[in-house]
Amino acid sequence: MDRIINFDHASATQPLPEVVESMKPFLMESYGNPSSMHSIGQQAKAALDKAREQVAALINAESNEIFFTASGSESNNFVLKGVAFANRKKGDHIIVSAIEHFSVLQAAKSLGKLGFQVTQVPVDKDGLVAPDDVKKVITDKTILISIMHANHEIGTVEPIEEIAKIARERDVLFHTDGVQTVGTIPVDVKKLNIGFLSFAAPTFYGPKGAAGLYIRKGSRINPLIDGGTQEGGRRAGTENILGIVGMGTAAEIAARDMDKRMTHVQSLRDMMIKSIEEKIDHVYLHGHRTRRLPNNVNFGFEFIEGESILLFLGMNNIIASSGSACTSKALKASHVLLAIGVSPAIVNGTILFTLGIDNSEDDVSLLEEKLPSIVQRLRAMSPIYKK
Amino acid sequence: MDRIINFDHASATQPLPEVVESMKPFLMESYGNPSSMHSIGQQAKAALDKAREQVAALINAESNEIFFTASGSESNNFVLKGVAFANRKKGDHIIVSAIEHFSVLQAAKSLGKLGFQVTQVPVDKDGLVAPDDVKKVITDKTILISIMHANHEIGTVEPIEEIAKIARERDVLFHTDGVQTVGTIPVDVKKLNIGFLSFAAPTFYGPKGAAGLYIRKGSRINPLIDGGTQEGGRRAGTENILGIVGMGTAAEIAARDMDKRMTHVQSLRDMMIKSIEEKIDHVYLHGHRTRRLPNNVNFGFEFIEGESILLFLGMNNIIASSGSACTSKALKASHVLLAIGVSPAIVNGTILFTLGIDNSEDDVSLLEEKLPSIVQRLRAMSPIYKK
Repeated sequence: MDRIINFDHASATQPLPEVVESMKPFLMESYGNPSSMHSIGQQAKAALDKAREQVAALINAESNEIFFTASGSESNNFVLKGVAFANRKKGDHIIVSAIEHFSVLQAAKSLGKLGFQVTQVPVDKDGLVAPDDVKKVITDKTILISIMHANHEIGTVEPIEEIAKIARERDVLFHTDGVQTVGTIPVDVKKLNIGFLSFAAPTFYGPKGAAGLYIRKGSRINPLIDGGTQEGGRRAGTENILGIVGMGTAAEIAARDMDKRMTHVQSLRDMMIKSIEEKIDHVYLHGHRTRRLPNNVNFGFEFIEGESILLFLGMNNIIASSGSACTSKALKASHVLLAIGVSPAIVNGTILFTLGIDNSEDDVSLLEEKLPSIVQRLRAMSPIYKK
Repeated sequence: MDRIINFDHASATQPLPEVVESMKPFLMESYGNPSSMHSIGQQAKAALDKAREQVAALINAESNEIFFTASGSESNNFVLKGVAFANRKKGDHIIVSAIEHFSVLQAAKSLGKLGFQVTQVPVDKDGLVAPDDVKKVITDKTILISIMHANHEIGTVEPIEEIAKIARERDVLFHTDGVQTVGTIPVDVKKLNIGFLSFAAPTFYGPKGAAGLYIRKGSRINPLIDGGTQEGGRRAGTENILGIVGMGTAAEIAARDMDKRMTHVQSLRDMMIKSIEEKIDHVYLHGHRTRRLPNNVNFGFEFIEGESILLFLGMNNIIASSGSACTSKALKASHVLLAIGVSPAIVNGTILFTLGIDNSEDDVSLLEEKLPSIVQRLRAMSPIYKK
């Protein structure tokens, strides 16, 4: 098979060879259950402890503040529902932004059906939440503010340090969905002063099925998955040791290589943005131009369909995405793009490119070579296109 | 390291070589996200579809009735909470047995805090639920009955076909926790006429972190993990392809080898029970003598501590368990043994042996050789022991 040029790292990354190597003993030889007392179980327990320390180090947390889950979506549901149910006596009001991942928005919606009040704060045309907008809607009944660290589609990095400060002043718990940022850019839970942080291993070249939630010591939260004593009694179920070990290794490497990786993808990002804006007219960069994930490029191409662009890119072994990874099959217009005021026609012509450590300048050059003619050809067929 | 004689299969099984082989391509090469449209994603999607068919075949379900989760505990929480919230308008009453796994009991308890009514039906001295006891407590408000297929500690197999029939007649949804039975004994969801069935891959030599829930077509249930379109919109989160592929392979092999495996472990079980009862006095077999999992042996040894027995067995590389896998660290007396009326002193002297396909007659013979003298030595040190 020809090499695939992956500009869709937000959907899938290839785990690093070192990650896979670290997992191999846990495929078969070391099969113990960390909850059992005997030697084979204690091997698994030691591996679990080590991974917890590796992940904690990546975000400057204590290892007993790290709770393993199976996905970023589970982490987000865990914190929304767990905080809501644990703090109901204190209040019933939750604040989220309009551009959160569906696992936050839908969890909030489910809570809404159970009697909780949910306020969605808007974002500006770049996808930024204004801290003052959050401040304004806090009431005496507010128990949780959940604003993502960076958006999964448009890459905008939110001012969460300021929002966390406001939450702290008002004695409201603060969660940020860091699935796009943890392992991509520096995240320091102490510096950011956050109560809860979701993260997922595939973002930083770890295995699918491994993710977690940082819970600041002493925070009130109920389990999403009750029963069992695993994860300090906060998440029942035999641990996915294989995935967790891989995530630990991936976290350690992410911390070590962070600067190098950021410099690499950011230069490719800037090269890609520059070339698309120079070579193709009627294009719109979605998301903030500078407060942006270093690996995110998201463009609307007027007059044509994103799906058609993807098809032609695919013929050149280039993969990208027409929307967020989780909703591409839903065939619904992106709620993120609609929230920043993009017109439905341009939403349909939008392509998300997410860069990774396996991309090179050659990859971007190939895109630069192929994309303008693809867009031109599709526009030539479009009845609404006028030069 | 010396070979470990695993009589603790309920805590951990070693995945089969064929299972591990099938997983290997998904460690690194085939890293796609099944939700994305491009070729590498479609490979993952095909693998997911295949695993779903393999698991469906094991329990005689349709593949679109299989929903992947990360643990049996997640499956149990999913069904308890999902059915409760989805059917609240119909009623608020849930029936469980006193010896369910903690993930059922604690999920029910959490629902109790949210205003649901939970009735625990008792069990007899062998751990059997009487179908009539269930019938008696059904009210017009009952929305779910959750009675396990077989108990994880004492191995008693419940009369779920009769209970499912009662549930059906009264138009109440029925769930059974099949974590101990699926892949161990024949389970046919159509024949048993059940609405929901939890299962987990480690029971049948699949990987940890892979499990699932059977949901009969058309059943009303909310997601536990909201957001995303994965698993038919019923469970958000990028799928753990690696674990799911392994579970699929393990399910196919379990179906193929079921008779052979049952015959094998059952003969070892009967050999072990016979030898312990013949060679050691003051022992009590917990659980039903015939309606019993083929791989379960659970004995109370009077006058001594189970933990001490485990320690001496461990010196001979024999591993077993002093209680259920998930609660051994809780150091609490088993709620299952207390529910069947075992005295606390004997609860403390109880050992659970769970057999597997890797055990041989030699393993049982070794136990037969070592255990009586271990028990004798410990009793000799016990101030309460009188011959």
